[in-house]
Amino acid sequence: MRLVAPALSILVLSSSCASMPPCPAPAPAPNRRAEIEAFNRAMIEATTRMDDAGIVALWEDDGVTLLPQAKPIAGKKAIAAFIAQVTEANPGAKMRSFEMTCSGIEIAGDVASEYCDEHQVVDIGGDKPPFDGRGKLLFVLHRGADGSWRLRREMWNQGSE
Amino acid sequence: MRLVAPALSILVLSSSCASMPPCPAPAPAPNRRAEIEAFNRAMIEATTRMDDAGIVALWEDDGVTLLPQAKPIAGKKAIAAFIAQVTEANPGAKMRSFEMTCSGIEIAGDVASEYCDEHQVVDIGGDKPPFDGRGKLLFVLHRGADGSWRLRREMWNQGSE
Repeated sequence: MRLVAPALSILVLSSSCASMPPCPAPAPAPNRRAEIEAFNRAMIEATTRMDDAGIVALWEDDGVTLLPQAKPIAGKKAIAAFIAQVTEANPGAKMRSFEMTCSGIEIAGDVASEYCDEHQVVDIGGDKPPFDGRGKLLFVLHRGADGSWRLRREMWNQGSE
Repeated sequence: MRLVAPALSILVLSSSCASMPPCPAPAPAPNRRAEIEAFNRAMIEATTRMDDAGIVALWEDDGVTLLPQAKPIAGKKAIAAFIAQVTEANPGAKMRSFEMTCSGIEIAGDVASEYCDEHQVVDIGGDKPPFDGRGKLLFVLHRGADGSWRLRREMWNQGSE
């Protein structure tokens, strides 16, 4: 996912045209909330597709994920290795559905946080019943120099019905 | 806990004295990391004392805690009610030890995050063995207008040995 930063050409045009009406409307203020909603959609889409590379791309290089009964997994490489390990351990798995609803987006400059409910149904393969699980997530996001929001910190725990 | 903001009188003195040596040293830049370490110590001390009011005081009015197998608990009043309920349900409980070690303090203006390991041993009372549990925490903190850092968001999950 690549989020679009305000085009420099438009900003230059706006500032040089102040004394030359009719002047185009100023560039709109960036909608950080919409950017984070786009991040959430990208996470939902990559998870639904079981697109491991797509999920890893949504992490910062020095992101940290905090999973139950495990030590913190720090760094994009370690997170990628962990995701690959889960995929390898479940060769027949197929995501039947993945839903994630986030609340409470709060933004301070280039840092944001939000918390989400997730519900996933995964066909395990063979004659096993599907895995049907619910969880909650707390995300700390960071907006990089390229204008993209990525995961900096994530914790998951068990959800309620 | 009240953290000390730079005294306004010192700042005023510094700026008015620039051309009048000997001038006192300028006020030091506030050490936000030290403030957050003080927050952590206050949380450890209140938890160790089982000081429910002290714990609640470390929350923002609209803080949210995210506990396993539960819906988000939003707002200081709801968090206080939840803590009181846990205390009532365990009348003989006494904290034998509580340790919390935090890592990765990151500060952006008035917002910060960090993650922590905790280990608690609680005497349950009667002839029951003590509860000995480990967990991880992800904190999002906010610095209020009064200069105090408080919990804005918290998630807990199970730790590892």
